[in-house]
Amino acid sequence: MPNAYQPGKSSGLPARERDLIARRQRLLGPAYRLFYETPIHPVRGEGVWLIDADGTRYLDVYNNVPSVGHCHPHVVAALARQAAVLNTHTRYLDDIVLDYAEKLLATFPAELGHVMFTCTGSEANDLALRIARAHTGGTGFIVTKLAYHGNSSAVSELSPSLGAPLGGHVRCVPPPDAYRGAGTDIGAVFAADVQRAIDDLVAHGIKPAALIVDTIFSSDGVFAEPAGFLAEAVAAIRAAGGVFIADEVQPGFGRTGSHLWGFQRHGLVPDMVSLGKPMGNGHPLAGLVAKPVLLEEFGKIRYFNTFGGNPVSAAVGLAVLEVIESEGLLENARDVGAYLQQGLRELRATHEIIGDVRGAGLFIGLELVSDRSTRAPATAETARLVNGLRDRHILISSAGPHANILKIRPPLPFSRANADVFIATFDQVLGSLRGP
Amino acid sequence: MPNAYQPGKSSGLPARERDLIARRQRLLGPAYRLFYETPIHPVRGEGVWLIDADGTRYLDVYNNVPSVGHCHPHVVAALARQAAVLNTHTRYLDDIVLDYAEKLLATFPAELGHVMFTCTGSEANDLALRIARAHTGGTGFIVTKLAYHGNSSAVSELSPSLGAPLGGHVRCVPPPDAYRGAGTDIGAVFAADVQRAIDDLVAHGIKPAALIVDTIFSSDGVFAEPAGFLAEAVAAIRAAGGVFIADEVQPGFGRTGSHLWGFQRHGLVPDMVSLGKPMGNGHPLAGLVAKPVLLEEFGKIRYFNTFGGNPVSAAVGLAVLEVIESEGLLENARDVGAYLQQGLRELRATHEIIGDVRGAGLFIGLELVSDRSTRAPATAETARLVNGLRDRHILISSAGPHANILKIRPPLPFSRANADVFIATFDQVLGSLRGP
Repeated sequence: MPNAYQPGKSSGLPARERDLIARRQRLLGPAYRLFYETPIHPVRGEGVWLIDADGTRYLDVYNNVPSVGHCHPHVVAALARQAAVLNTHTRYLDDIVLDYAEKLLATFPAELGHVMFTCTGSEANDLALRIARAHTGGTGFIVTKLAYHGNSSAVSELSPSLGAPLGGHVRCVPPPDAYRGAGTDIGAVFAADVQRAIDDLVAHGIKPAALIVDTIFSSDGVFAEPAGFLAEAVAAIRAAGGVFIADEVQPGFGRTGSHLWGFQRHGLVPDMVSLGKPMGNGHPLAGLVAKPVLLEEFGKIRYFNTFGGNPVSAAVGLAVLEVIESEGLLENARDVGAYLQQGLRELRATHEIIGDVRGAGLFIGLELVSDRSTRAPATAETARLVNGLRDRHILISSAGPHANILKIRPPLPFSRANADVFIATFDQVLGSLRGP
Repeated sequence: MPNAYQPGKSSGLPARERDLIARRQRLLGPAYRLFYETPIHPVRGEGVWLIDADGTRYLDVYNNVPSVGHCHPHVVAALARQAAVLNTHTRYLDDIVLDYAEKLLATFPAELGHVMFTCTGSEANDLALRIARAHTGGTGFIVTKLAYHGNSSAVSELSPSLGAPLGGHVRCVPPPDAYRGAGTDIGAVFAADVQRAIDDLVAHGIKPAALIVDTIFSSDGVFAEPAGFLAEAVAAIRAAGGVFIADEVQPGFGRTGSHLWGFQRHGLVPDMVSLGKPMGNGHPLAGLVAKPVLLEEFGKIRYFNTFGGNPVSAAVGLAVLEVIESEGLLENARDVGAYLQQGLRELRATHEIIGDVRGAGLFIGLELVSDRSTRAPATAETARLVNGLRDRHILISSAGPHANILKIRPPLPFSRANADVFIATFDQVLGSLRGP
């Protein structure tokens, strides 16, 4: 996290924020990080805005969790209403969890017939691993080089972006990068890399269990094009007896604009699909959708998630789906996403540092390079940009192995007018990079 | 789960419930279980009551999650208020998560200086494992024979009660059972068992990382006495270079009556303490409290839990602590718990089948035996009792290796009058066991 706050550098902060930082270190310990050289301190959220104690409004171009907008009234009302009436668990009969399961599954291809509920995307991916192992009898997993699939013991071993040790049963493949791999057949290259990983697992006596990828490769740097490139790699893992897990924790719930789920852009049906972050618009709700055959073996042992699929979480999840529909957020992601990509591409004409603009819908990656011909990453400049935008009240962050790729993924009600503000401010901050 | 609903046995159920069961199987798949031969279908919760669609009120003597009472208005109000104002994450500055952390840590011995927030007890225990490994350099874990510590890949390998395969780095010890081990020094026996497990790990080249126990041994069968028996075993794991993790997911937050935390009855300070279920009264909130030195190594890599410690979860957690204080629930657990234990002990005089009544505060284990001298478990009778109580609108379940131990752990506002109803009904159902 090159944009993160560095302890000891807070001398410019007001006393109140310095005090909060000291309390955090004392109470929460050393594993927590803060965004920005000058951290922000919001006290209110509303639509695409976070507002601090001084009334300063920050345009949120980063947070994908409050996906239908910060503190959306329809979602808050559903939460408050259900919490006041009943909150139990899935060992009693309950209508709302089934109404939600039905509505959610109806958005998936018919082959994906079951859903299990958890509280976090990490739990969903962790459950997917357990199921993949039980179904295939294998233990080997293939992920991309800078993947992030969660923070549990098992899933952190599949999350090279964390910097924690990977498992001996894990193989990493380069992400399907159409910018640095321009001119190649991305799908064929990616499938060949996956095949090499399969062969290496087998050579070590490890039976492959699954290929798991974030279908828009968020932490690798946002790779969406060309749609369809995943199909060959999925065929390869299946031929090796493994399954394909689509991690939709980041791309899911309409963000990519064309479909509700990122894998749909690739014209395939995963064996399992993990869901998280935007599912409850900030409420701890996540889940795993699976082909029924996958659960046959695993279902012989019981699985119980105390809070997973409780009536309150189900009511919240249902409300989120209702807002996506009633406010046309999928269409908005498509329309404003295309508009925003176009605007950013136009900036490319005047700003040499913009190497690439890519993505799908309201999930856009913008790669900053110090030299377009060598594509050398502009890491330091990206950190200055992120902090410069923060100082102009726009929230953004970066990704990729060199932290030189802006992750642009605002709440879905982001409008063309919001996009105009972002583009204009970004243009200014880019200009100031060249300043004295 | 011998008391669980068995598919195909629902012919006596109303059409509406039969339909819900069919929908569950179709939508959620085979890993979900329902309580009771005739499952219940609550539509409303209130204090110690769950109420079904016909208005039938079930006295809840089982659910420890809605610990301050189902749908407690103070907690619901805090949830609704904060959700309408701001819900972000711990990478921005926020007051309420720190106010909560401060109030929570103030209930612990001063040595336990940091708290990290997760969404589930499984995540808290999973995090504890990662930290124990990083701090000790070891990988071996010691648990009790029928422990349950959660459902993640790593934690399910430490949860023999699930029936899933244990890890090769895991050793199980018999629980500290003062009923079956009557006449022995429970603390010395338990410590000797832990020492044998340590020796066996070392003999296999596995360095011990931690001893982890639920401090009231809930799923092993509820073992609370004599207070203090844990100290010797904790000394043994520390002497071997490992740490002691107190799993307070079930006993914590005042249930044991004498202290807020179960480990306090044993006069020791754990290295880490995991929290869950009652922490948010049903809201997905959990956490891990640790001595700062434990986090030094782990804190070098970042840990981020998207929903963990968000402002809404913190507001809920704070409200739960406020209710425990303002309603004197710790004192109530002590008073009503003692009253209830006394009443159940009196039943022992007239019902041969009651082998033992034990526990602390409102966490009581009642062991049913078909022969007091041999202590042979009355497994079938226990299942009939649990279902018989359900038919008389009292919710309870069982635990232990033979599922012959009633787990009695109602919401903490449980009153002496509620206890009277439970005792009288239990007396009747016990009587009917001997009937024609």
